[in-house]
Amino acid sequence: MLSHTMSVRVEWGDCDPARIVFYPRYFAWVDATGHHMMESAGLHQDLLVETYGIRGTVLGNVAMSFKSPGFFGDTLTVTTQVNRVGNRSFKLAHEIHRDKTVLLTGEETRIWALDDPDSPSGITAGPIPDEVKRLLRG
Amino acid sequence: MLSHTMSVRVEWGDCDPARIVFYPRYFAWVDATGHHMMESAGLHQDLLVETYGIRGTVLGNVAMSFKSPGFFGDTLTVTTQVNRVGNRSFKLAHEIHRDKTVLLTGEETRIWALDDPDSPSGITAGPIPDEVKRLLRG
Amino acid sequence: MLSHTMSVRVEWGDCDPARIVFYPRYFAWVDATGHHMMESAGLHQDLLVETYGIRGTVLGNVAMSFKSPGFFGDTLTVTTQVNRVGNRSFKLAHEIHRDKTVLLTGEETRIWALDDPDSPSGITAGPIPDEVKRLLRG
Amino acid sequence: MLSHTMSVRVEWGDCDPARIVFYPRYFAWVDATGHHMMESAGLHQDLLVETYGIRGTVLGNVAMSFKSPGFFGDTLTVTTQVNRVGNRSFKLAHEIHRDKTVLLTGEETRIWALDDPDSPSGITAGPIPDEVKRLLRG
Repeated sequence: MLSHTMSVRVEWGDCDPARIVFYPRYFAWVDATGHHMMESAGLHQDLLVETYGIRGTVLGNVAMSFKSPGFFGDTLTVTTQVNRVGNRSFKLAHEIHRDKTVLLTGEETRIWALDDPDSPSGITAGPIPDEVKRLLRG
Repeated sequence: MLSHTMSVRVEWGDCDPARIVFYPRYFAWVDATGHHMMESAGLHQDLLVETYGIRGTVLGNVAMSFKSPGFFGDTLTVTTQVNRVGNRSFKLAHEIHRDKTVLLTGEETRIWALDDPDSPSGITAGPIPDEVKRLLRG
Repeated sequence: MLSHTMSVRVEWGDCDPARIVFYPRYFAWVDATGHHMMESAGLHQDLLVETYGIRGTVLGNVAMSFKSPGFFGDTLTVTTQVNRVGNRSFKLAHEIHRDKTVLLTGEETRIWALDDPDSPSGITAGPIPDEVKRLLRG
Repeated sequence: MLSHTMSVRVEWGDCDPARIVFYPRYFAWVDATGHHMMESAGLHQDLLVETYGIRGTVLGNVAMSFKSPGFFGDTLTVTTQVNRVGNRSFKLAHEIHRDKTVLLTGEETRIWALDDPDSPSGITAGPIPDEVKRLLRG
């Protein structure tokens, strides 16, 4: 399966008054790593929109489990990998660690979203093209 | 059970190039609403640290399900409520909506965290005092 | 001159380990207040782009002077006002205070930016229409 | 004079609906580069607080001039250098560029801030120790 690893330094502004990473920042890093992973397979977000006419690979749900806090100055390793390719969505597994300490693990579902003016959300899940499935499987 | 509702306007800088809210921002709003809720019961974060000697009410895990995107200029209603008070942790349920459209629902577990130099994470879950339990139950 | 005032609560995640507002957050608030001010005169960012065919009112420069720190839980008042309307740009003056304490004052220049493929930046300053000038003057 | 250069990738979440970097993000990057620069001279923020008993090197003012926008996927080079060491404050000059295109230039003043309960801001500028001056001069 497709995967990607990125290194992140925890900056002063990433931390809150408890002197640990303010947790929404972890989601920003995981999101960035997911983009990098997609790009490594030629699936740049703009290209997906242009080539396949989709609205995007829209987040359906996300769950994170926090094991240990990150601190100012830490160098973190963020790993993302595809762990399931469905017909209209795919799942990514995330892990962030500092050396051998796991800070968090998580999973998200990304929807292959088409514009749908009849849906209350404006989008609807559509079939992922075979070649994209193949690329996601790595 | 204790609950709180806050209104948030989606600003330009909260949105990404897909012209929808960049999802880590939702976590920042939910976190803020949780703080406001705790404060409404007299449980200010600084007070918890000082009075009970804890490290904080540390996030254990969080799960969010995204139903519909938020757009620049939206006025959103963020609702948080305690939905379970355990012995060493408690759960919050979140919902964000725009008028009658639900944008997301979610749940998080907060740990009553004591300093613990022997733990790899530096913290360990401790017993929530009865008066705090009572306040959380509203 | 056109002006606008907005109230902001300093949240936990807006603060850094020094327990004061991480200063880039002030710029996000000032930017939001500027958008609200423009909208109060009917000059919504999307409308400007559609009606006048501009790229946007692009930030040319900004200067801020910090007098006093903001703290978690503060309720701040953010005031923005047009203080000069030029032919191709306009200036905004900002002030953020907590009760009678001024936290910062600042000024920014916004450029009436047209697309320009020949410019290295992709944009060039163009003439602000008279009706926009009139609205900015309030 | 002391200086430091850092590379930053512009992520999806750093950009706004105009598909360019939301400008407060530049301040976060410049702030991070400043921290890295100080650390490269042994002047870690925590160490400054512990060793010299200061509150921090608090931002006094900042001015930025924006020349060209940054886009999603850009790799930017952020350069910070000390350009004046005063008795109670020092100045840093910043530049961000993408290849040969300058995106912004700026300057900030950092105050050597001591706690001062008598001051409305809670801090007052104090004399920078000679060894710190020497390190800042590089």
